[in-house]
Amino acid sequence: MKRLQSTISGQVFPFERIEEFAGNGESLEVGVEGLASARVKPGRHLWERFAEFLPVAIDGDLTLGEGDTPLLPAGKALSEFTGIGQMLLKNETMNPTWSFKDRGSLTTIAMARQMGEPVTATISTGNMGHSMAAYGARAGIRAVVFVPHYAPLEKIRAMAIHGATVVKVRAPDYSLMKREVLGLATECNLRIVSGNGPIRVEGYKLAAFEMYEQLEGRVPGFIAVPTSACGHLRGIFKGYRELKEAGLTDRLPRMIVVQAANVNPVVSAIREGRDRIIAVSGGDTIAEAITSGDPPGGDEIILKARQYGWLAEDVTEEEILDAQRRFAGAGFFVEPAAATSLAAVKKLRAAGKIGQEDPVVLMLTGSGLKDMSVFARQPVSVIESDLRRIRGDVEKILARRGEVF
Amino acid sequence: MKRLQSTISGQVFPFERIEEFAGNGESLEVGVEGLASARVKPGRHLWERFAEFLPVAIDGDLTLGEGDTPLLPAGKALSEFTGIGQMLLKNETMNPTWSFKDRGSLTTIAMARQMGEPVTATISTGNMGHSMAAYGARAGIRAVVFVPHYAPLEKIRAMAIHGATVVKVRAPDYSLMKREVLGLATECNLRIVSGNGPIRVEGYKLAAFEMYEQLEGRVPGFIAVPTSACGHLRGIFKGYRELKEAGLTDRLPRMIVVQAANVNPVVSAIREGRDRIIAVSGGDTIAEAITSGDPPGGDEIILKARQYGWLAEDVTEEEILDAQRRFAGAGFFVEPAAATSLAAVKKLRAAGKIGQEDPVVLMLTGSGLKDMSVFARQPVSVIESDLRRIRGDVEKILARRGEVF
Repeated sequence: MKRLQSTISGQVFPFERIEEFAGNGESLEVGVEGLASARVKPGRHLWERFAEFLPVAIDGDLTLGEGDTPLLPAGKALSEFTGIGQMLLKNETMNPTWSFKDRGSLTTIAMARQMGEPVTATISTGNMGHSMAAYGARAGIRAVVFVPHYAPLEKIRAMAIHGATVVKVRAPDYSLMKREVLGLATECNLRIVSGNGPIRVEGYKLAAFEMYEQLEGRVPGFIAVPTSACGHLRGIFKGYRELKEAGLTDRLPRMIVVQAANVNPVVSAIREGRDRIIAVSGGDTIAEAITSGDPPGGDEIILKARQYGWLAEDVTEEEILDAQRRFAGAGFFVEPAAATSLAAVKKLRAAGKIGQEDPVVLMLTGSGLKDMSVFARQPVSVIESDLRRIRGDVEKILARRGEVF
Repeated sequence: MKRLQSTISGQVFPFERIEEFAGNGESLEVGVEGLASARVKPGRHLWERFAEFLPVAIDGDLTLGEGDTPLLPAGKALSEFTGIGQMLLKNETMNPTWSFKDRGSLTTIAMARQMGEPVTATISTGNMGHSMAAYGARAGIRAVVFVPHYAPLEKIRAMAIHGATVVKVRAPDYSLMKREVLGLATECNLRIVSGNGPIRVEGYKLAAFEMYEQLEGRVPGFIAVPTSACGHLRGIFKGYRELKEAGLTDRLPRMIVVQAANVNPVVSAIREGRDRIIAVSGGDTIAEAITSGDPPGGDEIILKARQYGWLAEDVTEEEILDAQRRFAGAGFFVEPAAATSLAAVKKLRAAGKIGQEDPVVLMLTGSGLKDMSVFARQPVSVIESDLRRIRGDVEKILARRGEVF
């Protein structure tokens, strides 16, 4: 028995409900009965093994091979930087469209298939639109992506080449545009999925299940998630909640909500002990993927943060650029949004909120290739040479062998 | 007992040899005795399970989680386009730096570690340099990347942010620059690894081992590989040769050498039945990752093509752009070089050289995000709307529901 339920007041709706939020604006989540007896089954794909935890059936032709991403030790340099000894990186940039969004697109497109919907829509400035365009192409389901009028042509191209219908909407403000477009769902009978949609969240659960397998049943102390619409964060946590409900673990991770200081409606509300977010408008950050100034899912996160003892931290533009360089210096080229968590956990460790021996997972949400314009703000040094001078130049470089870089 | 041996005349060199080619210019490959009794062992990582097939030990701290990439059915649209019923896509864009190069960088950096070399170098215009920069950063080994003076700043940035030393070399011609720089190896005692280096090739073998596991011991009829320096192609084939030598299969795949028609030294030599490549100079192609006009490894490929009945095909610029769109229309956004193989197998099928029921694997070598400038040459259609018109526009889009796209 499946249903949607609102995450604060517990109001119940039919599973098939086309609107993403309750009438009062609360986030919805999928409730499944019988999780206490859910079992992990043998299977090649994660979504086969955890099928009893998912509300939609995944047809084999829908997958683009999302997931199975590495969970790697961060390495010595990053551990020294943050002061956290046991830091792991979950590299979601190694997904089919190079961001975590693909896990949510799998369940979203499976829902469209299950409902017999030939068109599915989303609102996005980048990663989610690209991901839905690719999954729509794979499934033979038309993806419509609503983008704000200022979306860079490059991002639009990445959606359009997959055959998505891209609708560029002129509006005074992205939050307003989102609300208006989501409002079309019922009247146009079109499922419009946002980054916090309950069916997307079911896909993000899979990251939790995968880490559960990778850590052989152990649960990390903390999981840091760059947060915008809130879907990724609550999906991962819901995954662990369900593992606990099924008796597969008795622990839950503590989530770390990370935002840019310039657009921090959730982090500032948690910090100030409020019950509701206060929208941030006009804020701008180089972490382009986490710019929701008025996320409709924010209130749920604030409540859960209090209930479960989560942490919250925000980081400046300079800290983000520095963290991007440090990640790259350890082998990981991530988009600015993904870099925020490194700076955040360093600050939380310094404040004593994370212990030196606490196991911490950072979610690397998207590839650095996703945003090459910001990347241009990183310093670059190049040695200019030519065929006459090259030998001397190489000898100079080798003379620096001993240097630590 | 490990050694390097030249691939045509069989001349033998010490395994530790710092130069990549034999004195006469022939490609070298690693020869390992005792492969007949090599066994696949249990292990979490591919390189643990196939350790007996590798000439270098892989320390666990060197990996960035390369490999474990999906091998997926191409889907109905691409099968109809090519006329090949059993077409599989090996998606190497889901590697840590989003190209197949990462497999070769793993073994290259392991070799540097094993030899105690604090610096390792490569020559690259893009993917390989980025990959080596990332693996160098992970390993704490300084990566030096020689790039031609015209390399785009974006590509240089992607190397430099990882802490690589980038040396921009002014030279009249890239092939000449490569030769001159490779010539510095011995005199400067610096290991300079090209795309066809024998230790990189050992890493590309891992793609063969992985497909062997994914296909549960079956060997595909054909494997199509976009070809430039030739290392990827010969690495995959060497992997299968060794599986055969170890008695794990009695079949070898037939390789398909794919190049851009504008830079086709290997394909044209095979087609014309020559023994040696004739260098192509001044050729230019949008498939930027496969522009070696004078690959030193080409002669070996020509010889093997004859010996093993390989196929060869080249494709025009228009065919490449069309193939990139078709891949994206099926859910896969690949760089132009990776798109070449789709156009090539279609032509080979039409010519009757590939049968309708032959199982064919296409190697998707690099992400479409790698080359956004070429991408701008793809058509893009966008619907412009605003908040007043949006409802009408959505209804118009939905009225087209029945359309096949």
